Amino acid sequence: MVAITKLNFSEFFASRRALVEDQLIEYLSNNDPPDLWESMRYSVLSGGKRLRALLCLAAAEAVGGDEARQKAIACACAIEFVHAFSLIHDDLPAMDNDDFRRGRPTNHKVYGEAMAILAGDALFALAMEVLVTHTPQAVEREALLAVTGELVKATGSHGMVGGQVSDMALTGRADMQIDRVDPAVLESMHRRKTGALIKFSLWSGAKLASADANQLSALGRFGEILGLAFQIADDLLDVTGEMETLGKTPGKDEASGKTTWVRVFGVEESRARLRQLHLEGRQALQSASLEQNSLSVLEALLDYAINRSN
Amino acid sequence: MVAITKLNFSEFFASRRALVEDQLIEYLSNNDPPDLWESMRYSVLSGGKRLRALLCLAAAEAVGGDEARQKAIACACAIEFVHAFSLIHDDLPAMDNDDFRRGRPTNHKVYGEAMAILAGDALFALAMEVLVTHTPQAVEREALLAVTGELVKATGSHGMVGGQVSDMALTGRADMQIDRVDPAVLESMHRRKTGALIKFSLWSGAKLASADANQLSALGRFGEILGLAFQIADDLLDVTGEMETLGKTPGKDEASGKTTWVRVFGVEESRARLRQLHLEGRQALQSASLEQNSLSVLEALLDYAINRSN
Repeated sequence: MVAITKLNFSEFFASRRALVEDQLIEYLSNNDPPDLWESMRYSVLSGGKRLRALLCLAAAEAVGGDEARQKAIACACAIEFVHAFSLIHDDLPAMDNDDFRRGRPTNHKVYGEAMAILAGDALFALAMEVLVTHTPQAVEREALLAVTGELVKATGSHGMVGGQVSDMALTGRADMQIDRVDPAVLESMHRRKTGALIKFSLWSGAKLASADANQLSALGRFGEILGLAFQIADDLLDVTGEMETLGKTPGKDEASGKTTWVRVFGVEESRARLRQLHLEGRQALQSASLEQNSLSVLEALLDYAINRSN
Repeated sequence: MVAITKLNFSEFFASRRALVEDQLIEYLSNNDPPDLWESMRYSVLSGGKRLRALLCLAAAEAVGGDEARQKAIACACAIEFVHAFSLIHDDLPAMDNDDFRRGRPTNHKVYGEAMAILAGDALFALAMEVLVTHTPQAVEREALLAVTGELVKATGSHGMVGGQVSDMALTGRADMQIDRVDPAVLESMHRRKTGALIKFSLWSGAKLASADANQLSALGRFGEILGLAFQIADDLLDVTGEMETLGKTPGKDEASGKTTWVRVFGVEESRARLRQLHLEGRQALQSASLEQNSLSVLEALLDYAINRSN
């Protein structure tokens, strides 16, 4: 596999995505009980962008080169399992009640609500199992425990799950004047719901590659900025995107009364915020003392999060 | 606190239960977001028997004395969080659709389905966070990682979640002749659904207390036997118990078409199996090379699992 220091971006993304995909398939090659695993595979192996896994690998390789890729690949897959678990539960009728995801019926539409709830639970457990038992011995045990602790924090009440609770509280509240939503409340919700896992992706890759304190802090900060930018881009896509490229119904957030960046600030102001985050992200990276090629790969991932069309 | 070697059973159970209860309250003293934590507290702090936590502490103290209690208390609480998470999800309308649990309305009846799903998810995350970040440094890091890996295995597809999937498959299948359910299938379902976490409780306590291989294997085997006995006793209680002591509607399993021990083997044969497991459990304990008082405490826990009235 070509090193991060000697490749162009598309080659990097394609090769690392293939690596992640193969590893995900391997970790999911179980059939006991058969219908549970089928349901788990259905949601994980559905052609996701694997952005979080790529961020984890890119951070690891930026800090520790080729050798670090093997140290971080189990973690990169664990992140994708946690992400899939959160999508399955968020799509449930009791939550966002979504029928489509990435252009396909959502998990509960295919396997029923009970199996969807259990597939989500099992994917969360699998994430932890893969991280703890498949991260190679070359990673210090104390570092692996720190990464494990941060992953569950990014997942639970301090992270994704807490963010979903706040999101629900902000959704469809007819008694709430939309121009009076405190931007800080909106940002805090997004920082948990999507930001925490994206920040973790970068931080964990660096940590598993034995990054120093300065690099950890710079890449963590970069992750926070990228996570927020990713969410604003997502909200913009909901109003400007098309069904075909999105794989889900555009305008869904608006119709369901979701409190999005675009609803609170409008399209122009949201775009301006994205441009500002782009600058801040590049600055955060500069302080991480990485060599030029690694820096460029991470910048390209930031560009992608901001300018993507799906 | 009186040592395990110098107390009577009721004193041991009362003091350790109080210790667990205090620690659970402390770990749950968070309010962000407030409604999520309220919902989590509602299900955990509802007067459960804390059998799993007591098994973990008893195994730890039997192997390592007073000092081992501090090594295992975070794990004991983590097990209770995982247990509460599984009860919340199993009670959901899409699953067993239970309105009452321990004499109180189930989580989703009070907080709604969405919050109940998220409270379960957050409790699973909290379990892992508490185990990984609150287990003292005196525990070897490699042992803590092994315990973490086994807890998620006992929780996911190989354990609780997989068992619930099999349970659902066996439930209410009008096309299935109840006398033709393979006893091995029934036992395998229970081994996952309730057995895996109970076995883990004993094994993890011993592991955190640096048990040798012989003790680990003997206490693991004891845990398997106790877990199975606990489930058969549970099925018997469903047909012989009363609403007041059970805290739930007796006959519920029968009415919902659950495949239970009693339905498959009848009351008498189930009782005979319990007596046999009682003997096997005592034999397994004998091989663990424990001093007499610790042995007696663990035997008393087996007696309790078999002879309890709720």
